[in-house]
Amino acid sequence: MSKTKGRVTLPSESDFLDETKELLERWGADAIRDSDGTKLDRDIKLLDAKIYTTYFVARGHNEFAREHMDECQQLYLMSKRHTAAGTRLRIDFMDGYFNQQVVPDLDHDPKKWWEVMDRTAGQALPPEEWDLSMEGDLSVEEDLSMEEDLSMEEDLSMGGNLSVEGNPSASGGKPGDGGKLTVVIPHAEPFHEYTVSFLVYAIWDPTQMYNHITNNWGDKPHEIPFDVRQDASGAFAREYLVQWLKDNPDTDVVRFTTFFYHFTLVFGSDAKEKFVDWFGYGATVSVKALEEFEKEYGYSLRPEDIVDNGYYNSTFRVPTRQYRDYMDFIQRFVAGKARELVGLVHEAGREAMMFLGDNWIGTEPYGRYFPEIGLDAVVGSVGGGATLRLISDIPGVKYTEGRFLPYFFPDTFYQGNDPVPEAVENWLCARRALMRRPVDRIGYGGYLSLAYKFPGFVDYIEKVTDEFRELYDNIAGSRPYCGLKVAVLNCWGRLRSWQPYMVAHALWYKQTYTYFGILEALSGAGVDVSFISFEDIRQGGIPEDLDVIINAGDAGTAWSGGDEWLDGTLVTAIRRWVYNGGGFVGVGEPCAVHHNGRFFQLADVLGVDKELGYTLSTDKYYTKQAQGHFITEDMENSKVDGDDGVPHIDFGESMKNVYALDGDTEIVEYSDHEVHLSAHGYGKGRGVYIAGLPYSYENTRILLRSMYYAAGREGDMKKWHADNIYCEVHAYPETGEYAVVNNSSRPQVTTVYDGRGNAAGMEMKPCEIRWFSM
Amino acid sequence: MSKTKGRVTLPSESDFLDETKELLERWGADAIRDSDGTKLDRDIKLLDAKIYTTYFVARGHNEFAREHMDECQQLYLMSKRHTAAGTRLRIDFMDGYFNQQVVPDLDHDPKKWWEVMDRTAGQALPPEEWDLSMEGDLSVEEDLSMEEDLSMEEDLSMGGNLSVEGNPSASGGKPGDGGKLTVVIPHAEPFHEYTVSFLVYAIWDPTQMYNHITNNWGDKPHEIPFDVRQDASGAFAREYLVQWLKDNPDTDVVRFTTFFYHFTLVFGSDAKEKFVDWFGYGATVSVKALEEFEKEYGYSLRPEDIVDNGYYNSTFRVPTRQYRDYMDFIQRFVAGKARELVGLVHEAGREAMMFLGDNWIGTEPYGRYFPEIGLDAVVGSVGGGATLRLISDIPGVKYTEGRFLPYFFPDTFYQGNDPVPEAVENWLCARRALMRRPVDRIGYGGYLSLAYKFPGFVDYIEKVTDEFRELYDNIAGSRPYCGLKVAVLNCWGRLRSWQPYMVAHALWYKQTYTYFGILEALSGAGVDVSFISFEDIRQGGIPEDLDVIINAGDAGTAWSGGDEWLDGTLVTAIRRWVYNGGGFVGVGEPCAVHHNGRFFQLADVLGVDKELGYTLSTDKYYTKQAQGHFITEDMENSKVDGDDGVPHIDFGESMKNVYALDGDTEIVEYSDHEVHLSAHGYGKGRGVYIAGLPYSYENTRILLRSMYYAAGREGDMKKWHADNIYCEVHAYPETGEYAVVNNSSRPQVTTVYDGRGNAAGMEMKPCEIRWFSM
Repeated sequence: MSKTKGRVTLPSESDFLDETKELLERWGADAIRDSDGTKLDRDIKLLDAKIYTTYFVARGHNEFAREHMDECQQLYLMSKRHTAAGTRLRIDFMDGYFNQQVVPDLDHDPKKWWEVMDRTAGQALPPEEWDLSMEGDLSVEEDLSMEEDLSMEEDLSMGGNLSVEGNPSASGGKPGDGGKLTVVIPHAEPFHEYTVSFLVYAIWDPTQMYNHITNNWGDKPHEIPFDVRQDASGAFAREYLVQWLKDNPDTDVVRFTTFFYHFTLVFGSDAKEKFVDWFGYGATVSVKALEEFEKEYGYSLRPEDIVDNGYYNSTFRVPTRQYRDYMDFIQRFVAGKARELVGLVHEAGREAMMFLGDNWIGTEPYGRYFPEIGLDAVVGSVGGGATLRLISDIPGVKYTEGRFLPYFFPDTFYQGNDPVPEAVENWLCARRALMRRPVDRIGYGGYLSLAYKFPGFVDYIEKVTDEFRELYDNIAGSRPYCGLKVAVLNCWGRLRSWQPYMVAHALWYKQTYTYFGILEALSGAGVDVSFISFEDIRQGGIPEDLDVIINAGDAGTAWSGGDEWLDGTLVTAIRRWVYNGGGFVGVGEPCAVHHNGRFFQLADVLGVDKELGYTLSTDKYYTKQAQGHFITEDMENSKVDGDDGVPHIDFGESMKNVYALDGDTEIVEYSDHEVHLSAHGYGKGRGVYIAGLPYSYENTRILLRSMYYAAGREGDMKKWHADNIYCEVHAYPETGEYAVVNNSSRPQVTTVYDGRGNAAGMEMKPCEIRWFSM
Repeated sequence: MSKTKGRVTLPSESDFLDETKELLERWGADAIRDSDGTKLDRDIKLLDAKIYTTYFVARGHNEFAREHMDECQQLYLMSKRHTAAGTRLRIDFMDGYFNQQVVPDLDHDPKKWWEVMDRTAGQALPPEEWDLSMEGDLSVEEDLSMEEDLSMEEDLSMGGNLSVEGNPSASGGKPGDGGKLTVVIPHAEPFHEYTVSFLVYAIWDPTQMYNHITNNWGDKPHEIPFDVRQDASGAFAREYLVQWLKDNPDTDVVRFTTFFYHFTLVFGSDAKEKFVDWFGYGATVSVKALEEFEKEYGYSLRPEDIVDNGYYNSTFRVPTRQYRDYMDFIQRFVAGKARELVGLVHEAGREAMMFLGDNWIGTEPYGRYFPEIGLDAVVGSVGGGATLRLISDIPGVKYTEGRFLPYFFPDTFYQGNDPVPEAVENWLCARRALMRRPVDRIGYGGYLSLAYKFPGFVDYIEKVTDEFRELYDNIAGSRPYCGLKVAVLNCWGRLRSWQPYMVAHALWYKQTYTYFGILEALSGAGVDVSFISFEDIRQGGIPEDLDVIINAGDAGTAWSGGDEWLDGTLVTAIRRWVYNGGGFVGVGEPCAVHHNGRFFQLADVLGVDKELGYTLSTDKYYTKQAQGHFITEDMENSKVDGDDGVPHIDFGESMKNVYALDGDTEIVEYSDHEVHLSAHGYGKGRGVYIAGLPYSYENTRILLRSMYYAAGREGDMKKWHADNIYCEVHAYPETGEYAVVNNSSRPQVTTVYDGRGNAAGMEMKPCEIRWFSM
């Protein structure tokens, strides 16, 4: 294969010129970047490659920030829950929080901006029913460890009209007198639970804090995050960039890392992560924002609208109208402000690239306002197929870039470890998705000098980069053949395309992997994937050309939909659509809310429901498993364990107590007195139920077959297709090319269908891609 | 051991005099009964034993019933759910029901007494929006299989003012013209689901129906159940009994089987069980009852109050006020009417015994009105310890009798099978409970001639009957030592003592065995068990002397409590009580309803909550299992599997996603990223969480230890105690006796604590009981 070049970004570092040149050549890289902890020397910047430079907007300028501590970013936090044992309760609301990260905001009247909640009654206390009290170190707790007949005296004189000298927030530390600021409820309801929702200033950027603590950076200054919504900060952000662009003439690409507001990341008093929501708007809050919101929307947000019982409107929550309004409000502000900065970059003749992470809140690339920002590129971390598509599907930018794994850090690149297997796995997962929609560039991060010590790794990446360029050129921006049009339905829809079931970016969670597998499977499947919301259906109906709707998740989450399913309009719209030929695939607890005698509101479509205990009196005779079924045909051929002739399918966390409603339900898998996989005719369409779908070769095929079966299009599946579950065929009608891919690192033999009805056997080497002309 | 006699009831049959005499002697029986399918000869009735005769009040008198078909018992049934594909929907409401069991009641205006429900909107249609239509055999279905643009003509002329000649109900069969009666909704909402709630007459007694079908009784007449609330039937029931008592002078005990209303048991059109609720009031309904209810309570019940979305107010449902009122209404009627009959029995100088089952609805022995009936005895079937206590704890009767297993039927007593093991298991389970509170008599049922063919069985029962008399005499009506006072808390409380988690009497269900194990364990445990309701706590608070409250069940069921936990009064009452030293043991999904940021409303007491997805963003560091804990001490000594040193506990169906709230929670068992067993201090009391507790020797001990730990009374456990989990000690301070019991059929060695602080080793033979004086 002749050497190709381009579309690859290399990290580099000081004193590494010759090796950088060598790898630039071998990997065909055409761009060089700095990383956290690395800097590029002048001679490296002169190489024949674009230079990316990381740029921080709202942190890393402590000389400015220290002079404007009243413009620090803010959050609403909820104290621990305290149960009142007596009629008087004191809450050390900062207990458990990390006072190096956040300090209470006493600049704005707590009586106006804070809220003390009686969580048992579900109500806020009137402001006159609680007080702030600053005292010496409290050694007596008044809640559970204390007797009821409490007669301790309490200094409440500071409550109400609190005026603390030496505002602790502005000084970035503890209250002036060394005491602890607490909330006192003088007339609590015994055995009610109370919490305090309070405003804080954030005085340490979460990403720097994480790196600082993790790498023991000692007395290196804490980077203070400031809020560009505030006057001085907004002006500073602009002016600093203007100057920076002048000072950094070698930079071709300004890599914004990122803009203004970090996803919610709060540490505990033990300096460990306490709360993390990659989607969280926690750090976007400020009194100014809340005031502007009220002016614009005509109603004010309560602290509880943000605190949300301590859930902080996690992406798993069915969003309230208030939170939706607030997100929209923030998104518009962020887009407008970011556009200003991007404009400056463009005026200076550079490109603007955004890192998808860290301070990305409000920039959602699938959101309504993202195109207005005018970015040239987005770069993000690739954990697998779904995270690849999360980047590559982003509309409205000139190019996208994926940062692949492993990161060149000592956790992987240490003596005795082989980094190649992780690289292979990452590449194979991501490659499936690349075949559907490639990012325009790939890259790596970390210390290049570390990677250089592993020649086998360097060799492998040389192969990967060539393979990437080959597939990119063959695809040539054309749309691959899609056998079906599929929509994933949840509360968030398009806004969170490829982002359902994520807490922190691409981390494994017991409660999510069973659903995330659906996205991973879809990311490389030969279907056209979109993400739609319940609101989309209500507003615009279901697109005529849609073949399959997938609704998957635990009951009550934004993914399943929770109370959205109480809406008869939604339910009837989907029923009508399936009846007329659509396919509905439900996974886990789809369309689930207990109402009107059903848990699955589309039980009539799915042919199954979940037993909550209420219908145990109804005999359930429908337990007979179909002998062979389209959906599990490949399993039956390839993987029958045990002697029961039944395919053993990995449903992950699975789902208990699902049963067939009647004899019309095709039970595809039944075990342990439960249905885990079934299908059901409904008019001209079908419903398919799956108990869970963690990512695997087998499950990817089960999902594909479920979708074809649901759509009643079984006959169309073997158009561009490989029978072997480890292989796939991707066709590009516009270019006349197609590729047969071995997704595994073992040799495979498969029958390949070439789109014209011809089937032929083919032997595939490990990981091989073979390209053919139609 | 010298031969003892008494307290045993023998079934007998025709032509079996000598063998009956022999077994009467060997088993020491002092009563003889007939059974289903057997009759006692005159010479048997002359033996030296009391004679029990089965008596049916409301069935088995077809000559009367046929003349009063308008007094047949009634039920409300719900049709299948039908989704309207078009704007016109026809519902064959009887579809799926067994027309030999039930026929529609057209005597009472369907427009007044029936209800057509739009289940999607959750609303009843106004009567003018649906019609009854009788037609020839319908071969066209109008719901899912039919196109929307339906233009079929429909004879609606009979709707509204329906007057069908030859009332199909009264003739006990199909409509006169052979057509099918349907409900037509001329203007349906497309893709809404509809059901019809309709009144039927029951024309076949469910128990006789079951026996008839199971045993192929062919053209043997169907026994028609009549409703003693109706005038003629009420009079007949009385008059017939008067005469019967005259005609049956040999009968000493009238064994009512049972009174008036069968538990809900509905068959399907395939003549198989379709719906069974051993607690169901389905068959108590009648227009007369509904009218009398309205007069008395000042409001009328809707069909939906009975139909309840097709759940028919299953005992698993949190009861509505309407259903509670209705139950009370029925109970009062049943008690009054049954008292009349019992009075007649007493006037005739006989005893009145009630069989606990079949037509027992309204007689609940733990209900408010049961004592008024004036019964001498209750007899019921013993499936194990909990069902034994269900009988033996019944207040207000002179004696109780347990019918033990196996039943002398060919399913167990066939050549080649040994009936002894089943008898041993049944006896060992029940014996634990007998040690706590014995029934006054034991007995058997079925064909004595079958049992007689198994000499080993006859020998074993001879031993059992002697053992029973010995323990009964030793206990002598005295109260055993109870180390703790324990209350099981649910919606039903005392009314359903020992009856939680049951669908059909004592059958295994996947969704219940994990909880039923608690009752089985408690039935023989050295604690004082009561059953209390949420309402009890609201009305009267928590008894001062209570040590432990157990709340166990799946979320939303009557056992866990569902929306009851929204009541702050309840929650604070329990918090206060635990705080002051009480112990709260939660199993499965205790106190569970999602509200105010918690799923377990007593999460602060338990120290754990269940992850619903909303708090995934909150880091959960509390996963460290305690090294050794009081609750699992016996497991650690006796049963450590694998090499992780962790006791492997059988949590049955277990519970997913439970996590510890903070470091104060003692995690006793943690696996698969979940807490399954934990404890938590709360003031002077404690909460204990258990993921599930199917019955086993190990779990019985875990529950006992959990209760002592929750109550903070660990030090008191080894008062009357055996260390070996297969053994127990029962002490009777009033008589000065105590018994060491080997509950297993293997030899055991154990340390025994004698109540005075002495511990001594003891070797126990299989199944042995050893009695000692204190």
